[in-house]
Amino acid sequence: MAFEFRVLHQQGKARTGRLATPHGEVPTPLFMPVGTQATVKGLSNRELVEIGSRIVLANTYHLLLRPGPERVARLGGLHGFTGYDGPWLTDSGGFQVMSLGHRRVISEEGVAFSSHLNGDRILLTPERSIAVQEQLGADIVMAFDECPPFPSERAYLKRSLERTLRWLERSLAAKTRSDQALFGITQGGVEPDLRRTSTLETIRFDLPGYAIGGLAVGEPKEAMVPVVDLSTDLLPADRPRYLMGVGHPEDLVAGVALGVDLFDCVYPTRTGRFGYALVDEGRLNLGSARHKDDPAPIDAACDCYTCRNHSRAYLTHLVRTEELLGLRLLSLHNLRYLHRLMERARAAIEAGTYGDFARGFAERRWPEGAPGWFADALVRAGVW
Amino acid sequence: MAFEFRVLHQQGKARTGRLATPHGEVPTPLFMPVGTQATVKGLSNRELVEIGSRIVLANTYHLLLRPGPERVARLGGLHGFTGYDGPWLTDSGGFQVMSLGHRRVISEEGVAFSSHLNGDRILLTPERSIAVQEQLGADIVMAFDECPPFPSERAYLKRSLERTLRWLERSLAAKTRSDQALFGITQGGVEPDLRRTSTLETIRFDLPGYAIGGLAVGEPKEAMVPVVDLSTDLLPADRPRYLMGVGHPEDLVAGVALGVDLFDCVYPTRTGRFGYALVDEGRLNLGSARHKDDPAPIDAACDCYTCRNHSRAYLTHLVRTEELLGLRLLSLHNLRYLHRLMERARAAIEAGTYGDFARGFAERRWPEGAPGWFADALVRAGVW
Repeated sequence: MAFEFRVLHQQGKARTGRLATPHGEVPTPLFMPVGTQATVKGLSNRELVEIGSRIVLANTYHLLLRPGPERVARLGGLHGFTGYDGPWLTDSGGFQVMSLGHRRVISEEGVAFSSHLNGDRILLTPERSIAVQEQLGADIVMAFDECPPFPSERAYLKRSLERTLRWLERSLAAKTRSDQALFGITQGGVEPDLRRTSTLETIRFDLPGYAIGGLAVGEPKEAMVPVVDLSTDLLPADRPRYLMGVGHPEDLVAGVALGVDLFDCVYPTRTGRFGYALVDEGRLNLGSARHKDDPAPIDAACDCYTCRNHSRAYLTHLVRTEELLGLRLLSLHNLRYLHRLMERARAAIEAGTYGDFARGFAERRWPEGAPGWFADALVRAGVW
Repeated sequence: MAFEFRVLHQQGKARTGRLATPHGEVPTPLFMPVGTQATVKGLSNRELVEIGSRIVLANTYHLLLRPGPERVARLGGLHGFTGYDGPWLTDSGGFQVMSLGHRRVISEEGVAFSSHLNGDRILLTPERSIAVQEQLGADIVMAFDECPPFPSERAYLKRSLERTLRWLERSLAAKTRSDQALFGITQGGVEPDLRRTSTLETIRFDLPGYAIGGLAVGEPKEAMVPVVDLSTDLLPADRPRYLMGVGHPEDLVAGVALGVDLFDCVYPTRTGRFGYALVDEGRLNLGSARHKDDPAPIDAACDCYTCRNHSRAYLTHLVRTEELLGLRLLSLHNLRYLHRLMERARAAIEAGTYGDFARGFAERRWPEGAPGWFADALVRAGVW
């Protein structure tokens, strides 16, 4: 099979690797942009390639509603439909069903919900999720899981992680395509023993990759770090680890330290549409008047189209006049920023200098001192 | 001076030419995209260059309000501020003052109005319009004119064209930069004798170019054709002629026949944002369900990024899900369509086959027969 993962370098828990998929090899650690409705908001395929996007995510929930998976399949799957010919990953729909679906009823069979668009009653089960993901045709597909909100009762967390394991078994049984890799998702909230159980039970399925689910749902970062640390301790070293929904720069730097290989988040494009540009120091608010006369680019060290061609002054003008080009240029820069952050992380791991890299990042991000959770992550990772 | 115009080929009244500006030579006839707020909505500079845009327009009224002409001047004029280094053209603000300004008071001095953004009271005069346009730094600037709505009383049309002539004189007197070409604008509505007077009086100023103003404001096309015909008869053959605000494909084909060299309009980008794609046959509504399963591009003969990479089905998905990429891809195609239409027109004039080209266009556009105004334009132009 065309799916293969190799760890190349290791420093403490941090590692670089190479993931082969039917649509190409990609380096890890890697940030994956989110193309919710089969388009990364505002960006063209050409731009995605140019800024170094290597795997693009699409949401099963959204595509199930529009344009419908049968249509996507007829038009060549996500690759043919969108024209983006690199690797794709689809989520299972489990998360969006919880966050977007109306009048949810969760049962052992699956989740019944009403479409947020037209109220249509839809039942998503492990079997249906896999069938839809097979029609969408991504290189990596996700098992159907139940993602509890934060905070949740311990009893519910336990029930739902057990159900997620049964749904994983059904997801695997439903799978028919051999050219798609199915990743399992661990749950258990931020309860260490539940997370441990979920992880140990999930890896018994000997899957080509594993996702750490149920985080980045509102829990404090102090609680997230030990759970990620525990998870990467238990997950097999020779399989890629995907921390779902995580995309703030500092979370990526900490996550990589702890041995995570893959990330995704709408943050870079969403904050771009709100007028913010990501830099090591944090975010520039280009909607504010303070950049109106600044001829400098967002970041002189950035090689993206936006930074090579446009000033903060012009970007501020575009944001304040609500011009489409502003959304585009900031989304482009922000994604390039995260891709470049991962390139820098990979180079540091290869050079055995990840600790320096992470400390340097922290000094720019928090001149008054890094927060405890960040230092904790680096210490746990053995790179402090 | 760096500004020069040469007619290269002529067929009937139609002609091709070459216009030299301080920021490059451009071929005519030419469609100029509108970058209202110093950005062609949704498109990057790189895309403008790739699709064959050669002169970009910006609106003095909008830039006067935001970000302010002093700021644009400090940041290198339109070229430096936007990073678009080809030729720019700015209008005088006269048209937008009438269409967007609130509580307008027109006097001999100029037009007092309230900003549509914050109500600030602003006085735009010929002197102020030229000063602002000098700060913006376009290659071609327009004299401040009064653009009457359609229909207007004959007495008002007469008074306003006379005032426009006095304002032209004041615009010229106010001009200090030698690296900008000032075009005069003729008025007179669709009254042939008034238009004749306006044109004859305007050309006495011996300007580097002339615009036919006050059209495309709601008058029937049957009334527009004779006025354009009359205008190009009277305008000097060795100066470029710019038909302001005109941009429907059929109007360009008729306008070129009648000897017009330059056009501008928001139509291609605006109709793109509404989900329409321009083709010789008219417009495709990509928001409609009929293209949901169509794997064909908008136009197999089109060489734009959109047509080379995306199906009608995918574009329909983007339009129906209100994705930013849809607006971009359709605006890009529509502008490329008009640029390509002008390339085809230039090639036909050079080959002496403009009549065939225009008739072929009409047969695809109106299979049941071209409207009278279109045939009238071709007959008057001597290419039928």
